[in-house]
Amino acid sequence: MIKPLGARVVVRRDKSKENTINGIIVPTNDKPKNTGEVLAIGIDCKELKIGDKVLFNPYVVGEYEDLLIVKEEEFLAILDK
Amino acid sequence: MIKPLGARVVVRRDKSKENTINGIIVPTNDKPKNTGEVLAIGIDCKELKIGDKVLFNPYVVGEYEDLLIVKEEEFLAILDK
Amino acid sequence: MIKPLGARVVVRRDKSKENTINGIIVPTNDKPKNTGEVLAIGIDCKELKIGDKVLFNPYVVGEYEDLLIVKEEEFLAILDK
Amino acid sequence: MIKPLGARVVVRRDKSKENTINGIIVPTNDKPKNTGEVLAIGIDCKELKIGDKVLFNPYVVGEYEDLLIVKEEEFLAILDK
Amino acid sequence: MIKPLGARVVVRRDKSKENTINGIIVPTNDKPKNTGEVLAIGIDCKELKIGDKVLFNPYVVGEYEDLLIVKEEEFLAILDK
Amino acid sequence: MIKPLGARVVVRRDKSKENTINGIIVPTNDKPKNTGEVLAIGIDCKELKIGDKVLFNPYVVGEYEDLLIVKEEEFLAILDK
Amino acid sequence: MIKPLGARVVVRRDKSKENTINGIIVPTNDKPKNTGEVLAIGIDCKELKIGDKVLFNPYVVGEYEDLLIVKEEEFLAILDK
Repeated sequence: MIKPLGARVVVRRDKSKENTINGIIVPTNDKPKNTGEVLAIGIDCKELKIGDKVLFNPYVVGEYEDLLIVKEEEFLAILDK
Repeated sequence: MIKPLGARVVVRRDKSKENTINGIIVPTNDKPKNTGEVLAIGIDCKELKIGDKVLFNPYVVGEYEDLLIVKEEEFLAILDK
Repeated sequence: MIKPLGARVVVRRDKSKENTINGIIVPTNDKPKNTGEVLAIGIDCKELKIGDKVLFNPYVVGEYEDLLIVKEEEFLAILDK
Repeated sequence: MIKPLGARVVVRRDKSKENTINGIIVPTNDKPKNTGEVLAIGIDCKELKIGDKVLFNPYVVGEYEDLLIVKEEEFLAILDK
Repeated sequence: MIKPLGARVVVRRDKSKENTINGIIVPTNDKPKNTGEVLAIGIDCKELKIGDKVLFNPYVVGEYEDLLIVKEEEFLAILDK
Repeated sequence: MIKPLGARVVVRRDKSKENTINGIIVPTNDKPKNTGEVLAIGIDCKELKIGDKVLFNPYVVGEYEDLLIVKEEEFLAILDK
Repeated sequence: MIKPLGARVVVRRDKSKENTINGIIVPTNDKPKNTGEVLAIGIDCKELKIGDKVLFNPYVVGEYEDLLIVKEEEFLAILDK
């Protein structure tokens, strides 16, 4: 488990769709998606909660293994689909 | 549905008029319009409300599909026509 | 009508005098005037009121049709002639 | 009359002495003086008052006709001669 | 002993795994790890405590012998494994 | 007399020693001294008083005739010899 | 004596060890040490006291004779050996 500090949020970034031709995965030029799901929130977060589907600034930094650790101010909106 | 965070606003940008010749749409050099309609507001917004026709700074960033997600401070005026 | 947001002001910029020769308008190199008249004020304005003749910083930005939308802090003085 | 806004001050800059040879005014390379007299003060001014002889930063901007309109923080001292 | 000032934290950075071939250590191009263990905290620290396994910004500065002395705001998360 | 505004201080800079050979003053490459004596203080000064021998940042600006007019924050220490 | 102003600290920097060969001092490329001893503190200092052995940022400026005059925020830790 990972516990973000302050107003930071742990988020799993959505994966781009795989491009397959005859079942074979081929490279894609798609930009990484700037949407994901909130996995953990720091004690100073105000609006986000675990499980939110979120939209964030495209150029955030702060990776740990396959997760992002990002300040709440970098999130633009909750996507509610 | 999309819920903007903090003092952010979801706005649909007005479309430039299409340029048609004999019913055929032709390219235009018009700049994108910096007017639109407010679709959703964050909990920290102070003056704007849903449905307002608004004027915003021409170079705002923050797109999601065909919508803009912009901080309230980037809006200049409410247009009341 | 146009309603400026926050501490913004709508101002109509004074026109440069036209240069005419034998009644024909000829081009001029005059800089745009940085004086004008206040048409509308936002809810956070402190000193300006509608109708004031004002002097503002020469390089303000923020146009809408033939009007300027400018923060109150960009105004230098009220001209009382 | 001109009424400065906020913490701004209207000041008349002292003139450089004229350089004359046999009564004829000749050009000079003197820098503009950074002293002058206070003609009007804004409502947020704290120390300056009308009539003060003042020293200000040499590179202030903000002209209107033959006057300067400058924030009070750009003034260094009151000269009391 | 070393006592960090203000909101600073003393942290021992985790070592990269050694690369050995037949028991001989060979050079590696691995980046230095940006994880470690908290050894001491300043009086203004809010969330971290001695013993925490932590993740910090990759480019922090502030070395003393083999330790890092870093402001608490540079820490991203507590790793709880 | 000169009355500094706000947290400003009027200071007379100490002179570099003259370099003389057989009683003749010769040029020197010494940097200007960054020590001096406080002649007047503004109403917002907190620690300095008239008569203090002071050390200030070497690259302060703000001259009037042979005096310096400098914000109190540019002073490093009182020299008490 | 020297009395630092505000949150400044007077510190005597530790000397690099001399490099001697057969008792003769030879030049060294060692960086100046960024440790030292606190000699005096200003009235706004919060944690440091006279006599503390301290570690400070390597590139501090503010010299007077053989002493440093440095703001308290530039100190990283108290070394307690």
